[in-house]
Amino acid sequence: MKIALAQLNYRIGDFDANTLKIIGAVKKARDEKADLIIFSELAICGYPPDDFLDYNYFIKKCNSVLDQIIKASKGVSIIVGGPAENKNPKGRRLYNAAFYISDGKLLNTVFKTLLPTYDVFSEARYFQVNEVFEPVNVLGWKAAITICEDLWDEMDFFSYEEDPLKNIADKNPDIVFNISASPFNRSKRNEREDILRNQVLNYKLPLIYVNQVGAHTDIIFDGSSVVFNKKGELVLRLPSFEETIAYVDFEEGDIVGLEPLDKGVETGIEEIYKALVFGIKEYFTKSGFTKAVLGSSGGIDSAVVKCLAVEALGKENVLAVLMPSEFSSEGSVHDAIKLSGNLEVEYYTLPIADAFDAFRSILEPVFKDLLFGLAEENMQARCRAVLLMRISNKLGHILLNTSNKSEMAVGYSTLYGDMCGGLSVMGDVYKMEVYALAKYINRNEEIIPSEIMEKAPSAELRPDQKDSDSLPEYTL
Amino acid sequence: MKIALAQLNYRIGDFDANTLKIIGAVKKARDEKADLIIFSELAICGYPPDDFLDYNYFIKKCNSVLDQIIKASKGVSIIVGGPAENKNPKGRRLYNAAFYISDGKLLNTVFKTLLPTYDVFSEARYFQVNEVFEPVNVLGWKAAITICEDLWDEMDFFSYEEDPLKNIADKNPDIVFNISASPFNRSKRNEREDILRNQVLNYKLPLIYVNQVGAHTDIIFDGSSVVFNKKGELVLRLPSFEETIAYVDFEEGDIVGLEPLDKGVETGIEEIYKALVFGIKEYFTKSGFTKAVLGSSGGIDSAVVKCLAVEALGKENVLAVLMPSEFSSEGSVHDAIKLSGNLEVEYYTLPIADAFDAFRSILEPVFKDLLFGLAEENMQARCRAVLLMRISNKLGHILLNTSNKSEMAVGYSTLYGDMCGGLSVMGDVYKMEVYALAKYINRNEEIIPSEIMEKAPSAELRPDQKDSDSLPEYTL
Repeated sequence: MKIALAQLNYRIGDFDANTLKIIGAVKKARDEKADLIIFSELAICGYPPDDFLDYNYFIKKCNSVLDQIIKASKGVSIIVGGPAENKNPKGRRLYNAAFYISDGKLLNTVFKTLLPTYDVFSEARYFQVNEVFEPVNVLGWKAAITICEDLWDEMDFFSYEEDPLKNIADKNPDIVFNISASPFNRSKRNEREDILRNQVLNYKLPLIYVNQVGAHTDIIFDGSSVVFNKKGELVLRLPSFEETIAYVDFEEGDIVGLEPLDKGVETGIEEIYKALVFGIKEYFTKSGFTKAVLGSSGGIDSAVVKCLAVEALGKENVLAVLMPSEFSSEGSVHDAIKLSGNLEVEYYTLPIADAFDAFRSILEPVFKDLLFGLAEENMQARCRAVLLMRISNKLGHILLNTSNKSEMAVGYSTLYGDMCGGLSVMGDVYKMEVYALAKYINRNEEIIPSEIMEKAPSAELRPDQKDSDSLPEYTL
Repeated sequence: MKIALAQLNYRIGDFDANTLKIIGAVKKARDEKADLIIFSELAICGYPPDDFLDYNYFIKKCNSVLDQIIKASKGVSIIVGGPAENKNPKGRRLYNAAFYISDGKLLNTVFKTLLPTYDVFSEARYFQVNEVFEPVNVLGWKAAITICEDLWDEMDFFSYEEDPLKNIADKNPDIVFNISASPFNRSKRNEREDILRNQVLNYKLPLIYVNQVGAHTDIIFDGSSVVFNKKGELVLRLPSFEETIAYVDFEEGDIVGLEPLDKGVETGIEEIYKALVFGIKEYFTKSGFTKAVLGSSGGIDSAVVKCLAVEALGKENVLAVLMPSEFSSEGSVHDAIKLSGNLEVEYYTLPIADAFDAFRSILEPVFKDLLFGLAEENMQARCRAVLLMRISNKLGHILLNTSNKSEMAVGYSTLYGDMCGGLSVMGDVYKMEVYALAKYINRNEEIIPSEIMEKAPSAELRPDQKDSDSLPEYTL
């Protein structure tokens, strides 16, 4: 049995695009003589659909996509994820389901048991818990079809009462399939492979694990689908952050790779860099924009975001705006210009003094002789936001936020000022990782000027200000 | 048996305040010769505690408050809600519990069965589902102790598989207690009383229902606690939006009121008005602020918010800022001043032209001869936001947002402009209700000038603009 893993990128609620993509992959896999093609969790509607699941219209569309996939399955078998209606009028009205389709017919529907409801997950809002554990006859083999969390019954922070794989394993399946929508984080690929390998070793069953790829604003799905033989050896690992269709053989009760395993994977800061670039690309593609604008202060944060944006969108699609105030050092302006030169990115220099002074005059009747303070520091950031948002409005560029997670965690930022932007590129990146990203960007040549890397972090909103006046020092 | 209903206002995570309040109420009820005092759901930590429940420190504090309440229960019985640890290492680590305490001892702990996980509720994130259904011996009577949603097994949009009251009713209880944290909405009090009365009539059991009162930013709990005798007659209804301790007698297997039932309750726009004023008061009290600033355009939305703020905070705590642009009509400025006069509220008039012009000049190198358009309309709203936020920063006033739900629903507003503010007072109020609120405010005398009520809605961001240029007409 030749099995195809379809690691694809879906658009939530774009049923035409998802249908085309799924049926296209079915055709391709059939041309490659695959017997079975496996798609990821809720592939039909994209994951996470969230409260769209409450709309009848949305579920009707899902059902209609399923019908089209069934029609397209002549001569091949398919496992694909989508919502399924709960026939019982009590309880949640939907299940999170895997459909097993073969040669023009829907033969089986399997439901998800463990519904993650923590962190970014809210599946208990929508889905009924499965209580039936039976292997599915897939082309003569007994397959344990599971959905994502079903294999994660034991985690560091939480154990479920139910163990779905144990329940099916009692019925002697030959192979485990898992269709998944498992988001990326710093250590996720290792954690995921450890959990999957443990399940394989525990039940001595080969496993095919198909994850989706793609980003949805604040969640990135990395793909990184894997296949283990029953000895727990990795037979296939699909790339991170890329769509792929790949194949394995299932022969004599175990899985055999068709190509040598590519062991090279990114780790550490290289993987984070790739994730961030992918996240920017996805945000712009899925929201229908091509161009970005950002404030360029000459500091390390905006420097790194500018480099990430150029990598993701192309230098011709990034506009940098320098907005010096009376407190901006000459060095900072010079550094920002040098970086724009290195990246060949268009930039404007727009001093904010006139706007800042206008606001000061306008408010004189209110504040009279109150001294310059935090409110005036913040007002500079807000003047910059007004300029950036007018450019965004007028030219159709999405404003990229250049804050980092360390600043956000302690509130070292200005509401409606430097907190503005459509996408907070580094909203989940600590300041220490920002430096590591800068070093990675400069790995072959100096793109980010060394002056930017070396100077002490400063908001430059009052004379001689340093981040370390208000915050602990960063360990570099 | 004399029973006290403690309809109180808790602070989420302010354990000292909650302990003082609960123990104070216990003392008061004991002085009034009550045998039993009933508090609301999760009273110990306040509802909704959300992800605080994931912190061990938070749960330790809850346990310590419970110990103090137990110590304070000499000579009296108490039912109070709080989180309880799940001893099983599998499943969620907490239950949503009701503690039955009597004369210095914790005698019983009852867990919640139906865990709302929809709309504003996320209880499945934190709590394990109860599976034990036994009445509790309360001073010789068999009490069915239930928690909020436990009585809401059947709703228009959703039915649970489990019916907790049916399960306990099989064991012949004498009375039903329900401790609750049920939020307010337009029709909630009627809906709630209907559901409760149906349960009473169905099982022929008297019911004491204790709800919390208080607001937490976007959720308002109205209290409106009720008591039904076994015939389904309302014996007691506590006021909405007020803390109260009230008493009933339980004699010969039914509940008897101690005072005549006050049948007067607010409905319709009067109730919404009261809820909004209460919401403002609560937001300021719980976040430790006393003063508000708001933009005052001369339109109906800011007029109504100004009146609500004056009612909630007092006229001396509200600062109105008029920020006319070249497109503001003389009428609007005049109307806003007249309204400030009627309310005796301090105001400043700060024309934005100089700031607006400064931004236009600064951006000339970028935009060159691009015509005035939407970006410049939005920029006026953003100039106003900079002024308001500087006042907020400098003087410590919370900025009140003056948008309404109709505008928000269709995106007729400026991001980082009129969408700014700490509290969106009318974020859940439709434009048609804004007019109804204005009429209600003017019920005895003209506070909001008739000119404001009668003129066609306009953002006044370009010459002769009307809302109806971009939006359908409002039905008044």
